[in-house]
Amino acid sequence: MEKYRLFLALLFLALALGFVSVVFVLRWVLFYREGLGWDGGPAEFNWHPLLVVIGFIFLQGIAIVVYRLPWTWKCSKLMMKFIHAGLNVLAFILAAISLVAVFDFHNAQNIPNMYSLHSWVGLTAIVLYSLQIVLGIGIYLLPLSPVCLRAAFMPIHVYSGLFIFTSVIATALMGITEKLIFSLKDPKYKESPPEATFVNVLGLLLSVFGGLILWIATRPSWKRPSELAPPNAAMTVRPGAEPNRDAHGRNGKM
Amino acid sequence: MEKYRLFLALLFLALALGFVSVVFVLRWVLFYREGLGWDGGPAEFNWHPLLVVIGFIFLQGIAIVVYRLPWTWKCSKLMMKFIHAGLNVLAFILAAISLVAVFDFHNAQNIPNMYSLHSWVGLTAIVLYSLQIVLGIGIYLLPLSPVCLRAAFMPIHVYSGLFIFTSVIATALMGITEKLIFSLKDPKYKESPPEATFVNVLGLLLSVFGGLILWIATRPSWKRPSELAPPNAAMTVRPGAEPNRDAHGRNGKM
Repeated sequence: MEKYRLFLALLFLALALGFVSVVFVLRWVLFYREGLGWDGGPAEFNWHPLLVVIGFIFLQGIAIVVYRLPWTWKCSKLMMKFIHAGLNVLAFILAAISLVAVFDFHNAQNIPNMYSLHSWVGLTAIVLYSLQIVLGIGIYLLPLSPVCLRAAFMPIHVYSGLFIFTSVIATALMGITEKLIFSLKDPKYKESPPEATFVNVLGLLLSVFGGLILWIATRPSWKRPSELAPPNAAMTVRPGAEPNRDAHGRNGKM
Repeated sequence: MEKYRLFLALLFLALALGFVSVVFVLRWVLFYREGLGWDGGPAEFNWHPLLVVIGFIFLQGIAIVVYRLPWTWKCSKLMMKFIHAGLNVLAFILAAISLVAVFDFHNAQNIPNMYSLHSWVGLTAIVLYSLQIVLGIGIYLLPLSPVCLRAAFMPIHVYSGLFIFTSVIATALMGITEKLIFSLKDPKYKESPPEATFVNVLGLLLSVFGGLILWIATRPSWKRPSELAPPNAAMTVRPGAEPNRDAHGRNGKM
């Protein structure tokens, strides 16, 4: 791998920032807020930011760069596809639970659902994410789709994955903004109490984490190398396999 | 150009969405809010969203894709660089005026500056944008920097341009969230008055505009074709020219 040390340094930095973001959101809900619970109150709401940061941001970010880890290049493409899909499905489940928590909290507190831009963009992101997972599994994991469809869809799959990931971070920044305005009363958000500064830093951590994941995922020289087809590939190829393309089916770059 | 009609359709859609976003923000400040003025009151604040959407989002988006317009491929690289830099400088000036408007409004109303995540990410974006413009002009417009520096810096220039553009849209979504919570009192944001729905739609328009610009800017097949060097290029090349690279100096894809 070209510039291997730089890759390692940026990957380590991204993982560290993702981990610190999870610590920050835990400290936010446990120390500054009402802790965690499932009682229709603020403690239930708190699962929302926690599970979004763990699943929809940190795990999704790892799922995006998992093909780029050079020590996985000796693993089969199929195994890496399962890891990529598995991480995304896990992230989706956590995001779905986080959504249940916030709807449940709103209903219990008689707060309307789906009125804010945060909720509009967030729900769009989760609907697109479910579509991305279903199409990704249907096209790339099940041995059903023709090679030409896999190749034609790959640039859309890669782009929409990065677009959804970016939208989720933008949604989280809106969510942080909303929550700090609504929950900080005395002192208010504009008076910059310690909680406000702490959670603003969480927002910056998430933004830099996102920026690093996008950088790692879009360097052409850090792509998993193509698995070259053997000379008689045309005769030995299995149904559903794509011997002449990039190791995880990519034919376009983002 | 490959898939020319698709390119035209997406470009037209992006420009239409950008234009409609400007109309939306104008209607927001003129019809739902206090109009425009320079008196330290809300009418001065209103220049902030208007100039951000016109300059920092719409103009910056056009500046990003300007190299990709096939009818400009017969123009010289230098002229396209001037157009790209000129649009970005104009966007920066409008963003700077929009910042003056909001600081002026805050100071006149005794509202603290720089307390919100919106302001932290937004100021970071404008500082990075000024750095991007200074480095871009210094490295690619002035005939001073060596070819190796131009080549090495290009992936960073391209990536940071797209990262700043994305950050500005995320900042705008936070700004919309803040403004609707602060300014809608009776009925409140959560009661979904017409203004809330209208401005939420503006947020969606900006997001889709951003997504289209990022798609157009990252398709390898829509890049401006390389200007092939003549056979005796090594002898005739001007100082500062890069005859063997992509038309606008790119050697990396995003």
